[in-house]
Amino acid sequence: MKAPSAKQRVFIEAGRREFVRNGYGSSSIRTIAQEAGVSLSALYYHYKNKQELLLATLMDGVDTYDAVCDAELARTGDDPVEQLRAFVRGNVKFRTEFPDQGRMIATEVRNLEPEGARLYEERRRAGRRRIRDVIDEGIERGVFTTDFPDDCRRSILAMTSAIANWYDPTGPDSPDVIAERYAELSLHLLCPGGVPVPATDGRDEP
Amino acid sequence: MKAPSAKQRVFIEAGRREFVRNGYGSSSIRTIAQEAGVSLSALYYHYKNKQELLLATLMDGVDTYDAVCDAELARTGDDPVEQLRAFVRGNVKFRTEFPDQGRMIATEVRNLEPEGARLYEERRRAGRRRIRDVIDEGIERGVFTTDFPDDCRRSILAMTSAIANWYDPTGPDSPDVIAERYAELSLHLLCPGGVPVPATDGRDEP
Repeated sequence: MKAPSAKQRVFIEAGRREFVRNGYGSSSIRTIAQEAGVSLSALYYHYKNKQELLLATLMDGVDTYDAVCDAELARTGDDPVEQLRAFVRGNVKFRTEFPDQGRMIATEVRNLEPEGARLYEERRRAGRRRIRDVIDEGIERGVFTTDFPDDCRRSILAMTSAIANWYDPTGPDSPDVIAERYAELSLHLLCPGGVPVPATDGRDEP
Repeated sequence: MKAPSAKQRVFIEAGRREFVRNGYGSSSIRTIAQEAGVSLSALYYHYKNKQELLLATLMDGVDTYDAVCDAELARTGDDPVEQLRAFVRGNVKFRTEFPDQGRMIATEVRNLEPEGARLYEERRRAGRRRIRDVIDEGIERGVFTTDFPDDCRRSILAMTSAIANWYDPTGPDSPDVIAERYAELSLHLLCPGGVPVPATDGRDEP
């Protein structure tokens, strides 16, 4: 699937608002067209039904997630501890800055029909490789000492996802502070004997 | 809300199947009555609309969760490490033995109308005190050394909840094995300097 056009982005934003508000089953394609300020037939020109718009909206959420994580990882050297911190920062940023995208993924993926579900799952699988690679690299270098890398990976994803359930933009903790805390907790999972101090700070590397 | 009668349990089970299958918005009260083997008016005699049945179904899920956790905690002495292990066992048992109850809580609470949402939230808050008490006790006794007890609590709930996303009853790991692993991981969060060995095994206490 190619990236949505500027016009399609308007439909995706309106669709997301309606899906998050009412859930897919009770969402009205007519309301979505109204909110996007277009006629129903103009919307149908781009997305042939509510199902296609749901898929586009979910894919857009994954695109956002990938872009946020990749930006954090790209600014970091190759030390696995620093890479893990960057990955957690990306996850926290996604959950706090794009809560509706996260919520859609949590509640609406189940409403995809089989073909959409297949395309979506394929896309997600590619994204999940990111944290798997970071953890594998840390284990290979002897930095991450856990006996349960798969459960650590799943746990780190679950605990950072749950931040969206309580995060309050007007609350005392900024996303950066929260990200620091969850990076520590994630490292406690991966390095049960204690987190090693990296020889160089990865963020200073070219 | 008092406990459902045997007849009401039949409606709750049928409701849960339909809500999990189609989501609340697309669920049909007519289908639920059919699956329960009663007329629509017989169902309406017990639950005045789909919304009331949704609330009863969610409350039943919380009742199940509480019963499973309390049974594990009751079999354990008062050592905080053993209490924590018992709590995690309860959570894993709930997610693996009652996956639909867990799924309902994850996806359908948002469909409660304000009054039901208030009742549900009140009920949940009482349940959340359980893990909070275990963690507070462990911190007071100096057994749990984390600086972030709230984030540990949220993380333990999130990571054990996520087990439902990948658990396979035909897979290699039994719920007991998974529970052991997640208890270890939870203790790595709570005791970042290393998990203390309890003086007595809490489970052997009267």
